[in-house]
Amino acid sequence: MSGEPELSRSSVLAAYETIKPFVHRTPLITSSSLSASLPGGNALYFKAENLQKGGAFKFRGASYSLERLSPEQLAKGVCTHSSGNHAGALALAAKERGARCFVVMPSNSAPPKIAAVRAYGAHITFCAPSAAARAAALEDVRARTGAAFVPPYDAAHTILGQGTALLELLAQAPEHGERPAAVVVPVGGGGLLAGTALAADGTGVRVFGAEPAGAADCARGLREGRRVEEFVPETICDGLRTPVGKLNFPIIQEKVEDVIVVSDEEVVEAMKLMWERLKLVVEPSSATAFAAVRSEKFQALGIKGPIAIIITGGNVDLSQPLPWAA
Amino acid sequence: MSGEPELSRSSVLAAYETIKPFVHRTPLITSSSLSASLPGGNALYFKAENLQKGGAFKFRGASYSLERLSPEQLAKGVCTHSSGNHAGALALAAKERGARCFVVMPSNSAPPKIAAVRAYGAHITFCAPSAAARAAALEDVRARTGAAFVPPYDAAHTILGQGTALLELLAQAPEHGERPAAVVVPVGGGGLLAGTALAADGTGVRVFGAEPAGAADCARGLREGRRVEEFVPETICDGLRTPVGKLNFPIIQEKVEDVIVVSDEEVVEAMKLMWERLKLVVEPSSATAFAAVRSEKFQALGIKGPIAIIITGGNVDLSQPLPWAA
Repeated sequence: MSGEPELSRSSVLAAYETIKPFVHRTPLITSSSLSASLPGGNALYFKAENLQKGGAFKFRGASYSLERLSPEQLAKGVCTHSSGNHAGALALAAKERGARCFVVMPSNSAPPKIAAVRAYGAHITFCAPSAAARAAALEDVRARTGAAFVPPYDAAHTILGQGTALLELLAQAPEHGERPAAVVVPVGGGGLLAGTALAADGTGVRVFGAEPAGAADCARGLREGRRVEEFVPETICDGLRTPVGKLNFPIIQEKVEDVIVVSDEEVVEAMKLMWERLKLVVEPSSATAFAAVRSEKFQALGIKGPIAIIITGGNVDLSQPLPWAA
Repeated sequence: MSGEPELSRSSVLAAYETIKPFVHRTPLITSSSLSASLPGGNALYFKAENLQKGGAFKFRGASYSLERLSPEQLAKGVCTHSSGNHAGALALAAKERGARCFVVMPSNSAPPKIAAVRAYGAHITFCAPSAAARAAALEDVRARTGAAFVPPYDAAHTILGQGTALLELLAQAPEHGERPAAVVVPVGGGGLLAGTALAADGTGVRVFGAEPAGAADCARGLREGRRVEEFVPETICDGLRTPVGKLNFPIIQEKVEDVIVVSDEEVVEAMKLMWERLKLVVEPSSATAFAAVRSEKFQALGIKGPIAIIITGGNVDLSQPLPWAA
């Protein structure tokens, strides 16, 4: 297989047909008490991708990325750099295919994330925690092993794979009520948001991103009409500290209605509510979307009908105090 | 409606037909990493009743109990005494039917459980934390309001309602693999264990209970051949401190293969693993079943095939430190 697929809804549909046998069909969860807590009382559909294999939606993009590889490429293995959920997802997807996986991780990565990548059988190379050190270490791994690089968000297959979560959500919604009027997802590199926007194309579902104020490069980029690359992230949302990707940004510019910015305090409040009411372990990055839905800015839109939220992941270091107690 | 239904599998099937429109069909969750952590490598099916309405399986029994009431009885409301999940479940089931609900709660009940019962619109009467004070306060409420008493576990409709969780699990299992070889559930009053044993009758699924050492009245009762009523519970499992009910014990004696006793340390370890790997908020009582499956005693049985576990609830006071950090 070769060539880049078109970035369109039909490509997301094709991606879903391909990865369906490999991914969990994660549950869609409703909560009457959280709905009642919103001024508009909208029904809420939470797509629990924290229950996806590897504990995050990233497994979708990683699975689809592996499908583009020829058996010869797969025999040499895959590699990536990541301190977070993409590393675990790729390691697990590679393991399921019997392929080797090489991951470059900053030496200050969270111990549970290192443990997960190791448990999935990947080879870890530690590097200094800088973009330059990561790139150099990855280049070294590629040269040494011939492994194919699978990027965490800035690649067509990744974007299309992430878009499949919304397709599944739309298929599940009729069991719970009406089709959602809008969907809100967190933005880090923008793989999920761009994929979701493609999957929503032509369906009438309005698409929003949610970003923490300490890494609001996407919202700023939309205002300024150009991708923001240089910023120093400072947020509890460890999954959202990366800049939006080159391929991702124009899709977001064209198809996403708005990116709502929330404070870390709003994120922690939303996260606690989700743990309490949904009984789900969700990571701070995941809670940005619900925090955005609760915000005045979003509520002022007066959207009628259900709001869908994609819970992106549940990989939390439970040996640390919970953020609302810290 | 009146008269007591037969305690049999067909009565559980009838209960399920009745309550199906009211209850959530909670997801069945698998985990390859938790399966791999078991010496026997058995597949694990976790029935996530922590995602049930009210955050616990108790909503099933409460819903079925309300169905036995005539419209005249329902007009007067329902009442119960409980410091925990049954109170919330009954309050929510009554609210959905527009019925009044009166709950007697010990004054030392956990604040989040009080808040939940109040949020579901029930009238709360506080009493001193003793069995005698509870009974007196309940009698007073009944005399004053004419509300029908809905017992937490020692009643036919409650037992049959709780048994529906296993029926649903057995219907969901084929999506994941083979039918389970065994099912393991926590024992407090024994509503869930007795209902599960009835639901399993004739299916070939082996039924086990799990009990914390600090409230192991059921295991001791099975050994001694008589129901143990007097003991001072001392366990982190706040949902399992009650003695097994009169109606429940003989069903358990007849149909349950064994009740496995686990220490609070084993419970906390199992609970942490469940939060980390399943990404679910589960309460300590829920974790007894997985702790039992991990025990030497259970593993020594050498059961082949999938093991099913019912996760009973997820109502945890998240403002407190997590038990493994406390």
